[in-house]
Amino acid sequence: MLYNAKQLKNFVYHTFRAAGANDKHATLASEALIAADLRGVDSHGVARLSGYIRLWQQQRLNMQPNIRIEHETPSTAVVNGDLGAGLIVAQYAMDIAIEKAQKAGTGWVAVKNSNHFGIAGYHAMKALEHDMIGMSMTNASALVAPTFSKDRMLGTNPIAVAIPALHEPPFVMDMATTPAANGKLEVNERLNKDIPEGWAQTIEGKATTDNRALKKGGAMLPLGSDREHGSHKGYCLGAWVDIFSAVLSGANYGPWVPPFVSFLSPPPNPVGEGIGHFVGAMRIDAFRPAEEFKGHMDKWIKTFRNARSIGGQPKVEIPGDQERRIEFKRLNDGIQIHPSVLKELNALSRQLKIDPI
Amino acid sequence: MLYNAKQLKNFVYHTFRAAGANDKHATLASEALIAADLRGVDSHGVARLSGYIRLWQQQRLNMQPNIRIEHETPSTAVVNGDLGAGLIVAQYAMDIAIEKAQKAGTGWVAVKNSNHFGIAGYHAMKALEHDMIGMSMTNASALVAPTFSKDRMLGTNPIAVAIPALHEPPFVMDMATTPAANGKLEVNERLNKDIPEGWAQTIEGKATTDNRALKKGGAMLPLGSDREHGSHKGYCLGAWVDIFSAVLSGANYGPWVPPFVSFLSPPPNPVGEGIGHFVGAMRIDAFRPAEEFKGHMDKWIKTFRNARSIGGQPKVEIPGDQERRIEFKRLNDGIQIHPSVLKELNALSRQLKIDPI
Repeated sequence: MLYNAKQLKNFVYHTFRAAGANDKHATLASEALIAADLRGVDSHGVARLSGYIRLWQQQRLNMQPNIRIEHETPSTAVVNGDLGAGLIVAQYAMDIAIEKAQKAGTGWVAVKNSNHFGIAGYHAMKALEHDMIGMSMTNASALVAPTFSKDRMLGTNPIAVAIPALHEPPFVMDMATTPAANGKLEVNERLNKDIPEGWAQTIEGKATTDNRALKKGGAMLPLGSDREHGSHKGYCLGAWVDIFSAVLSGANYGPWVPPFVSFLSPPPNPVGEGIGHFVGAMRIDAFRPAEEFKGHMDKWIKTFRNARSIGGQPKVEIPGDQERRIEFKRLNDGIQIHPSVLKELNALSRQLKIDPI
Repeated sequence: MLYNAKQLKNFVYHTFRAAGANDKHATLASEALIAADLRGVDSHGVARLSGYIRLWQQQRLNMQPNIRIEHETPSTAVVNGDLGAGLIVAQYAMDIAIEKAQKAGTGWVAVKNSNHFGIAGYHAMKALEHDMIGMSMTNASALVAPTFSKDRMLGTNPIAVAIPALHEPPFVMDMATTPAANGKLEVNERLNKDIPEGWAQTIEGKATTDNRALKKGGAMLPLGSDREHGSHKGYCLGAWVDIFSAVLSGANYGPWVPPFVSFLSPPPNPVGEGIGHFVGAMRIDAFRPAEEFKGHMDKWIKTFRNARSIGGQPKVEIPGDQERRIEFKRLNDGIQIHPSVLKELNALSRQLKIDPI
């Protein structure tokens, strides 16, 4: 069935309220979560709502966090998320980054003691309205094996960068540092379809096309897939995100990052607090006049869109084009909710005594 | 034949001096260039020296540049390299980034009107001795086709990040945003060996194993190789580097980036000045006490080194391990110079009337 974004946002808002979040936090969380559904990242939208609630019920997520700065300089801060939902904590951190950029030119905030923050691109895009470039990254529980490793050591650790243009829409990249997002294995499993070689390995570290490879103890592969095609570079990218998000902030890193799913326990002997993010904002006119920059971004975007495409292939696109296309369509037509997700949301409404969706 | 690093550095120094560079600039250039040979990136070391000289002879490289700040804020600057060698200009920019980080917590410098800067990792590593994280990126002339594109639109645009540890050596990633560096095609050509599918495409955009694909008008592929394995993510990374290096600074971007080789003319109708870099420094203790951070970096590094490796595969390594191993060996044993490079260097010594190597 199709639902409009407002309906869904309203449901998420009341879910967070019923769990004890204040008005501001429930609003922030609902906006960030629905942004994922609108932009086509279904795995990170309302499908995750009951996961947040289950973590709260296990006291692994704080619905009344005292999010605070623990240390700062003119262009940096470390934020303690007080185990709040990353959806909220990351927005708090991004606001600080933007404020610092207003004064110092740039602002960079490392976050600890947080939780899953939804889609990275949403947080990075917060900078755009201020004529700033936004960046965000987060670590996540270990699913990815570094080059040559049998063990899962890193999350799919995404990087997002949002850059404003003048008349063209912004450049928005938002990418996991793996060939495919984790949710794509499950999509293939539902369709009973093999995955391409280069996405995952078996528990022994062998190449596989099994869509249940992860569930059987295997691992995702870093972007590049194998050594010959640069998997060591994907490993570098994931490691970079892990260190900036967690070692800089004091969160858990590598194999110690707590899982988002409530049926898996956090690893013993934590090396930090919660999961970590790293966000940043750079004022365009800290480098050159904003209009001038944005005019060149328009030219950059048009030039790349006009690259000749290979026969039989789609047109060349700009990072963010696909998500915008989906958002436009879903704002008009509504958002399709999978029956299994709908069932979970209905259970939530009964449990928390809020109006069904 | 084997040469020691000091001999080579001395030769590079005198070459730059003979071309009119002052003592400081010739020193900086020779150190950066030899760092590439020491770290095993032979394509970016003395093998490029005669290329710099040819560009200078064509007045496309200025040996007496007035490198200067054009705009700044507490944490940012734009530097005009005055068409100097990137080897020198990038070090000037990195010094500014470090100075700004000392006061504001972080420093970020976009550079225009520069030239090839050697290996990205060398510049990023300059931050380490100050207990800072260093970053550097640069754009380069277009060799890479974005996903679905027949046209070359981006350089191999590397990203480097250097992060200090306590007792362990630093984490140093330095990666082109393509599966393989451009020079690897030439290595395969010399060995008369096919390249793996996924490195390059033909002029029509078809998959190929031809080691001469680039020379025949084809293109390199972004990291990820094809859409199914995430080439759109490699495209995002290369685009990000291009925009930060050139659109932020006012340099040439995309297909307008001037080539390093003197036998190719710069593209007409430039959209900026020279090529662009982007460098940054972040003071560790702008986030948390440096000792504490570095202690956790040691733990991070040991944990990843101890991941179980796949049967028959090498040990899991940390970004920077391979280069350090090569550097250790070459500092001891000397650096092998290819006969064709040696011939060029001898020609240089006659031409510029300096002592042969």
